[in-house]
Amino acid sequence: MADDVERAMTDVADDASWLDRMPMRDTDGNVRPDFVEAISQAVQAANAGFLCEIVGELHEADLGDLVQALAPDDRIRLIELTKADFDFSALNEVDDAVREELLEELEPATVAEGVRELEADDAVELLEGVDEDVQDEILDKLPLSERVAIERSLTYPENSAGRRMQTDFIAVQPDWNVGQAIDYMRETPDLPDRFYEIYSVDSDQRWQGAVSLDTLLRARRPVPLADLIDEDRRRVSVLEDQEEVARMFGKYNLVAAPVVDPDNRLVGVITIDDVVDVIEEEADEDLKALGGVTSDEELSDNFLTIARARFLWLLINLATAFLASSVLGLFEGQLEQMVALAVLAPIVASQGGNAATQTMTVAVRALATRQLNPHNAVRIIIREAMVGLMNGIAFALITGIAAYLWFKTPGLGIVIALAMITNLVAGALGGILIPMALDRVKADPAVASGTFVTTVTDVVGFFAFLGIATLWFGLK
Amino acid sequence: MADDVERAMTDVADDASWLDRMPMRDTDGNVRPDFVEAISQAVQAANAGFLCEIVGELHEADLGDLVQALAPDDRIRLIELTKADFDFSALNEVDDAVREELLEELEPATVAEGVRELEADDAVELLEGVDEDVQDEILDKLPLSERVAIERSLTYPENSAGRRMQTDFIAVQPDWNVGQAIDYMRETPDLPDRFYEIYSVDSDQRWQGAVSLDTLLRARRPVPLADLIDEDRRRVSVLEDQEEVARMFGKYNLVAAPVVDPDNRLVGVITIDDVVDVIEEEADEDLKALGGVTSDEELSDNFLTIARARFLWLLINLATAFLASSVLGLFEGQLEQMVALAVLAPIVASQGGNAATQTMTVAVRALATRQLNPHNAVRIIIREAMVGLMNGIAFALITGIAAYLWFKTPGLGIVIALAMITNLVAGALGGILIPMALDRVKADPAVASGTFVTTVTDVVGFFAFLGIATLWFGLK
Repeated sequence: MADDVERAMTDVADDASWLDRMPMRDTDGNVRPDFVEAISQAVQAANAGFLCEIVGELHEADLGDLVQALAPDDRIRLIELTKADFDFSALNEVDDAVREELLEELEPATVAEGVRELEADDAVELLEGVDEDVQDEILDKLPLSERVAIERSLTYPENSAGRRMQTDFIAVQPDWNVGQAIDYMRETPDLPDRFYEIYSVDSDQRWQGAVSLDTLLRARRPVPLADLIDEDRRRVSVLEDQEEVARMFGKYNLVAAPVVDPDNRLVGVITIDDVVDVIEEEADEDLKALGGVTSDEELSDNFLTIARARFLWLLINLATAFLASSVLGLFEGQLEQMVALAVLAPIVASQGGNAATQTMTVAVRALATRQLNPHNAVRIIIREAMVGLMNGIAFALITGIAAYLWFKTPGLGIVIALAMITNLVAGALGGILIPMALDRVKADPAVASGTFVTTVTDVVGFFAFLGIATLWFGLK
Repeated sequence: MADDVERAMTDVADDASWLDRMPMRDTDGNVRPDFVEAISQAVQAANAGFLCEIVGELHEADLGDLVQALAPDDRIRLIELTKADFDFSALNEVDDAVREELLEELEPATVAEGVRELEADDAVELLEGVDEDVQDEILDKLPLSERVAIERSLTYPENSAGRRMQTDFIAVQPDWNVGQAIDYMRETPDLPDRFYEIYSVDSDQRWQGAVSLDTLLRARRPVPLADLIDEDRRRVSVLEDQEEVARMFGKYNLVAAPVVDPDNRLVGVITIDDVVDVIEEEADEDLKALGGVTSDEELSDNFLTIARARFLWLLINLATAFLASSVLGLFEGQLEQMVALAVLAPIVASQGGNAATQTMTVAVRALATRQLNPHNAVRIIIREAMVGLMNGIAFALITGIAAYLWFKTPGLGIVIALAMITNLVAGALGGILIPMALDRVKADPAVASGTFVTTVTDVVGFFAFLGIATLWFGLK
């Protein structure tokens, strides 16, 4: 294997297809360890020519995965060795912690050199997580115009459209015709890297309308742009939340949208690739929140960071578990008299918890997609309560019979059956009302619902089961 | 309110801005009930002229939301009244159950009329869930060429690229220049509705490369297309899974990708709007699977459908809950002797369950995004075990002290502390190994992991706590 690497590396001068002979990924799309090893050897041998060639050929997304796979010291040396050939947008593809560490350890001048080559949205994404003094050092080394554009974007709130937009766009005059617009694009040297539509603005930079490139290409040169301009195109306000923007792109199948300031002046463009990142981030956040994990946990974090981050959620859970157990504690006498109650109580609690989690999952998702709203809330609450009742009755029968067959205690089946119905209805109501209440007070229902909901079903489950048992069997 | 509606409707002939005066959505973006009521009244009054105007003005996504909000009978009548003005792609925006019911109740001729206006991908999406005999009736009424295109797409496996692609695309000859390509687009009447790039194919329809529209617009007319063609553009195989396609689009920031058959012949194009739908569907599926809800559950389903769908998952949970309780049953004698054990046992199980769920959530997500792969699996497993050990020790201390203060039984704190460490380490290992094992056998880790994982922590938690207690206190 090491020989292969050696040979592959020495051949590189004659033959540019090193990447073809030693592909970065295996057939499942995972980065191959021997590829990483080869790069790591080249880094340690300071083989700059070879590395520049590889780095230049890789797509930024692949380059990011490579950086992520390297040891921390090799990452820095790779960037220092390849300098101008290294595309800094690759760093937006690595874990936040890795990126921030890299940017803080590299020379500010090196970073500034890399940032200069980026579009404003990529530069902002790169710099927004970095410590402010390091950020200032880097920005100081940039040409004035670029520094001003990045600094302005950084003044917009986190997660706003202003942070995600690119400030390079094509604005044309509304009185031009198709031919003039095409000639303008042919003659202007520094157009944005990728664009899908052009915008028409008035003399005050106020947004007038959009023309997609395919519309432009269908029309003949003398056609006035005014005939093609779509004035009803959906626009984004610079302060709008990125989640709102993503929802709009998804709903109306957009590829790009103009970003305007409060005076309707065109200040940037948001493109679908940034929106796809937002959609994935938000899905990731919701999923992790429901699982009790903070959204900034990353696979590259070390175990101490992770253990600390997960501790808080577990501490909250411990408090609710003690609360539920204190209900059991209230019935200590009864548990001593009839130990079957202690054995069966967790079943009632668990079944309620699972039914409630089903309802909660649907509710959290429907709130996130705006399918659940004040106009249909009552119908959905009633429906969930009915689902709880139906499954409550079904599991009351099953559990009642099973409990009776197990312990042969007459009445025990009826007691657990009644408790089961109570807890599944309570779970259904908790599962829908708690996320709705959290949403109403502008808290994220995905984050906190789980704890509250299972607390409800644990407490109600234990209380209903032991309370009904106390009455039925006349325990004390 | 009714008067407003009345006035608004009678005014419509003179004034096209009915939608401006009576917007469909409130400021939060929810569909307004009085808007739906107005449309419903117009449907019942068979006011076709008014409805055609409204339906023609609404974006397909809004029209879909309107259809969803109407009563079932009104939906059908609305489509029958507005016929040619009704954009059938709106039906792809409504819940599956609603769409399927509608398509089965409408006249096949009406549906065929609507399908004719759609692009192939929208038509396939519309028809794929419908009963096969209804599907045949509708297809029979379509012109031959469209029928063949749709039928061919329907032969590709569900969730494959072939189902999602649109079969309308622009293919040009590699020896053309920019001017010829632009003239071709100006002169061809039935180009696709939206397009972002054009493709070059050889005489056998084999894919040669792609040119984005912005690249085309930057170049002067005499430039040969061969100079602009990107031959390395990522392509999609027609049989590729849509999730794989979505991952590729997200990774490489694509807006469109050519779809080729096994012989590299260009057969279609997948565009980002379809991919955004896939990303949202997949996120939805994972989230629901982790919450124990089937992915086809929809907000419009009635409570019986939902109760039945959720029953199975709860039944599996019940079986595992009985399994866990049977562990408690093994220790009946000990529980009778020391009822504090019955009170505290659920705490050990619950804390383990939550820690395991954290690990499982991260593992499921990392498997879905391919961040967790065979090359880093060992490192991640060790890390999770360390996280379990760290938090196990932390919560052993907290719980041990709390249990001692509550029951004042010497030794009880030590017993629960040891059980806590055992269960949190077991939970961490279960939380990572179970999803990985499911993934290895090609099962969806999101669907089944939860039950297995909490079964592990319930069983291990009860067993460890009561077993250690039995030894420590010499119970029997």
